[in-house]
Amino acid sequence: MTRAGSELAQQAVAQLRAQGRRLAIAESLTGGLLCAALVDVPGASDVVVGAIVAYAPEVKTGLLGVAEQTVRQHGTVAEQTAAEMAMAALDRVDGATIAVSTTGVAGPEPSEGKQVGTVCVGLADQAGVETQRCAFTGERGEIRAQTVAVALGALTDRLARSNGTEN
Amino acid sequence: MTRAGSELAQQAVAQLRAQGRRLAIAESLTGGLLCAALVDVPGASDVVVGAIVAYAPEVKTGLLGVAEQTVRQHGTVAEQTAAEMAMAALDRVDGATIAVSTTGVAGPEPSEGKQVGTVCVGLADQAGVETQRCAFTGERGEIRAQTVAVALGALTDRLARSNGTEN
Repeated sequence: MTRAGSELAQQAVAQLRAQGRRLAIAESLTGGLLCAALVDVPGASDVVVGAIVAYAPEVKTGLLGVAEQTVRQHGTVAEQTAAEMAMAALDRVDGATIAVSTTGVAGPEPSEGKQVGTVCVGLADQAGVETQRCAFTGERGEIRAQTVAVALGALTDRLARSNGTEN
Repeated sequence: MTRAGSELAQQAVAQLRAQGRRLAIAESLTGGLLCAALVDVPGASDVVVGAIVAYAPEVKTGLLGVAEQTVRQHGTVAEQTAAEMAMAALDRVDGATIAVSTTGVAGPEPSEGKQVGTVCVGLADQAGVETQRCAFTGERGEIRAQTVAVALGALTDRLARSNGTEN
């Protein structure tokens, strides 16, 4: 993990603790790295409940519970899919009150017509859902590390806002 | 990840591909690292379907589906619990034909009366379930890395045997 990722993970765990929130994660291209970055922080067990790594498309629409219609219409790498992944994790992972998701193309080949480095991140809590779309460059490992950092950045931003510091 | 872990992950992906098997993962203390080690191997998307990271106890008995009675009787760090985690992942993660699980105490404090470094690993497929118990030393990161390596070792051993090379 990058140093930026490690610092963001520490910040996220501290914010979750301060707000009494519990986090669920739905990851595709990051394959468990996002959850691993968070549980690397001491005390994470109080605020991180778990993750669904929906690497294969059938796990996204099966265990995780994204609508098949969404995947048919938008593909697995899409903001709408990232949004539903986050909402599904919030719904299905026991005890979660906020959820973050990742889906994208780590490469080496394009997927479903999406370029390598295309990444979507989702965030959901009781206040609603938001998404972000990125275009990264680099090798598989670099694209994954950038995705983890962006997802953690989106999470810490959302937590900062929900704490009343930004709205 | 350790070099040994990386080589075992490559070996596991090659074996899964050769045998036409698809892997699901249930992880607790490793928090996504085991799945991440596997999807780091190019071509993993053909053979790794996904994972449930059941970090909080309620996710083990909820989303993952370990019997509450098992956790009450044996605790979350136990061979019986690792066995049920692997069987549950095999059952719940869409498309899986073999599953591996990890549960243990990464530290820094003992948990449920189990010493730091106590780790149980489970493996399940249509032929049955097997478990392994380990006592590791080191920091949180070291205990997690050793757990990933042992889980990958158990998986590659099982796949070697199921391929008829050992029995």
